[in-house]
Amino acid sequence: MEVNLSSEFVLGVDGGGSGTRCSVVSLDGLFIASGTGGPSNPITVGVDKSRNNIMRAVDEVIKKTGIGGLKASVLGIAGTDRSKLRDELLNTLPDSLGEKEIVSDAKSALAGATACRHGVIVVAGTGSIVYGENQVGQTARAGGWGWRLGDEGSGYTIGRNAIISILKAFDGRGPDTNLTQQVLNKLGLNRVEDIIDWAYSQCREPRDFARLVPTVREVANQGDEVANLVLAEAGGELGLVAQAVIRRLNLVEEFPIAFNGGVFQKSGPYTIALEEVIRRQAPECYFISPRFNADIGSCLLALKKLGVEITYDILRRLETSLE
Amino acid sequence: MEVNLSSEFVLGVDGGGSGTRCSVVSLDGLFIASGTGGPSNPITVGVDKSRNNIMRAVDEVIKKTGIGGLKASVLGIAGTDRSKLRDELLNTLPDSLGEKEIVSDAKSALAGATACRHGVIVVAGTGSIVYGENQVGQTARAGGWGWRLGDEGSGYTIGRNAIISILKAFDGRGPDTNLTQQVLNKLGLNRVEDIIDWAYSQCREPRDFARLVPTVREVANQGDEVANLVLAEAGGELGLVAQAVIRRLNLVEEFPIAFNGGVFQKSGPYTIALEEVIRRQAPECYFISPRFNADIGSCLLALKKLGVEITYDILRRLETSLE
Repeated sequence: MEVNLSSEFVLGVDGGGSGTRCSVVSLDGLFIASGTGGPSNPITVGVDKSRNNIMRAVDEVIKKTGIGGLKASVLGIAGTDRSKLRDELLNTLPDSLGEKEIVSDAKSALAGATACRHGVIVVAGTGSIVYGENQVGQTARAGGWGWRLGDEGSGYTIGRNAIISILKAFDGRGPDTNLTQQVLNKLGLNRVEDIIDWAYSQCREPRDFARLVPTVREVANQGDEVANLVLAEAGGELGLVAQAVIRRLNLVEEFPIAFNGGVFQKSGPYTIALEEVIRRQAPECYFISPRFNADIGSCLLALKKLGVEITYDILRRLETSLE
Repeated sequence: MEVNLSSEFVLGVDGGGSGTRCSVVSLDGLFIASGTGGPSNPITVGVDKSRNNIMRAVDEVIKKTGIGGLKASVLGIAGTDRSKLRDELLNTLPDSLGEKEIVSDAKSALAGATACRHGVIVVAGTGSIVYGENQVGQTARAGGWGWRLGDEGSGYTIGRNAIISILKAFDGRGPDTNLTQQVLNKLGLNRVEDIIDWAYSQCREPRDFARLVPTVREVANQGDEVANLVLAEAGGELGLVAQAVIRRLNLVEEFPIAFNGGVFQKSGPYTIALEEVIRRQAPECYFISPRFNADIGSCLLALKKLGVEITYDILRRLETSLE
C-alpha cells in the first residue's frame, strides 16, 4: 500500500518557562501551521498546568488545520530531562498525538538548529542549558538544573543578579548603578524595599525575573558598569557550562555551535563573554544561526522516529513552506 | 501607686526560618519560662503560618506559667524588616500581648548579645543578616534579603551551594567531591538526578537546605577541598556584608561583634574567612560570645519600651535565673 505522504502529519513542540510553541509538518516536509500556549516547564508550573498549556497550543493548531490525527509527536519540554515529572506528563497526553515522546527542549533546539546534525546548542531563555551530540552519536548535557540550582546565564539569572546588584548598592556593599531606578520603573515600584515584596510574592515566577533582561541591556548600553558586569558574568558562566559539554563529547575538529533563546543578542557583553569562553576550549568551533526553531526541530525528530530520512528535499520544502 | 514589679511581665520572641522561641521575664529581670514553635519568617511561610507558630510558642509559655497578661511584647522576626508583611503580622497578634512591637530578628539578637549596648551582630541561621548600632544611636543593616536575593553565608546558601557543587562535578565542569555521596546519603537519595525532584518539590523550604550544613562541615573536616571552599566562600561573603554595616556606622574605635545562629562554629573555614574579612575593615573590633540569646534580647527591648532601665542588677538577676 502506498502511503499518501501529504495526508499524514507529525507534531513538534517546544515548551519552556515562558511559553509553548508547536508546529505540524507533513511526512514529506511541508509546514502546515503553528499554535502557541503558556509556559510548560513542569518543574516550575507543575504537571497539570504544563499539560494544559501544551494542549492549548496543540488544540489551536488542530483547530486551524482540521487535521484529525497525528502519526507521531515529539515534545521538547524544559525541565523534563532528569525528572520523574517527564513520565507523569507523558501519561497525561492523549493518544491522538500518535507515537509520542518527550525529550529535552535542548535536544529539539539542536535538531532544529543543525537540521539533525552533530554540534552544540546553547539555550538561554527563562532558563538555560547546553546540549550537544558528536559524530559518533554520543550526547551530553550540562547546566539546566533549574532556577534554584543552576540556569547559569539564563534570563532568570540575569534578572535576579540585576536585583541583587541593586540591593548591594542599597546596602553600601556594591557600587551605585542606574539599574536601581530603571528596574524600579520597569516594575512600577517606588522604593528599593518594595522589590522584596515583589520578589517573594506567591505568584512570582522565574519568567518575571527574565522580563528584566531588556532593561538590563538598555542600562548596559547607556554605559552602566554594573549592568555590563551582570551581563558579561552571565555569558561567561554559560560559557563554562558549554566547555563541559564540548570536553565530554571530545569535540576537537570543526563543529557548529548555535545559540537559541531570547537572551542572545548579536553583539553586547553577554554574547561576547560567552563566545570568548567557548573559544578558549574549542578554537575550531564555528557559530551558526539556527536553521530552524526548536518546534520544527521536534518535528524533524518526529519524522526520524517514523523512519523518514531527513533529505535535502525535505529540508528545502520545510524552509520554503515556512517563509 | 507602687507597682508590684515581680507580678508584671514582658514577652520576648526570636523567630526565624527554622523555628520560634519566646521567653517571659518579669519587670525586675527574673526569667520565668520559655516556649517554642515552628518557623515564623512570614516571607517564607506566609503571615498565617508565621502567626500560628508564634502563638504556639507564646501559648506554651503562658500555659506553663499561668501568667494572665503581659505588659509588653517585642517580637524579633526574620523577614519583617522591610516588608509590608510586618504590619499584616502585627495586626493579627492578640491584645493579650500588651504593648507590642515587631523588630528584626537581628535587632533582638544584638540586644541579647551586648545586653542593649552598641556593636554589630552577624546572624547566620537558615537566613542571614548583619545589623549594628553605634554609640550615637544610629543603626544599619545589610544583607538579609532572603533566600532568593541574599542571605549570604546562611545555612540555606551553604546547603544550596553544596548541591550546586555536586551538580557541577556531575556535569564535568567542577572538581569531584565527597559531598556527592554524603549529601545523597543524608537526603536518602540514590542518584544525583534525584536531587532535582527533591529540590523543586512543592514542600521544599529554605531550612531543608540549611539542614545540610552539618554534612558539609563533616565532609570539609575530612579534607574535601570543595566542601572547604563552599564554607570559606560563604563566610567571606557574609564578611563583606558586615563590612558594609561597619562602614556605614563609622565604627572605628573598639567595638564588639557577636555571631548568632546555628551556622557558626568556633573554628573552621567558615568562621575563619568571616573574621578575616571583617578584620580587614575593622582592625579594632573584638569578637564576643553573645551574653543572651535573641529571645532574651527581645525581652530586654520590651523592658526598655516600658521605661525600665537595664541595670547591672537586672542583668545579673536574668543571668542567674537563666542558669
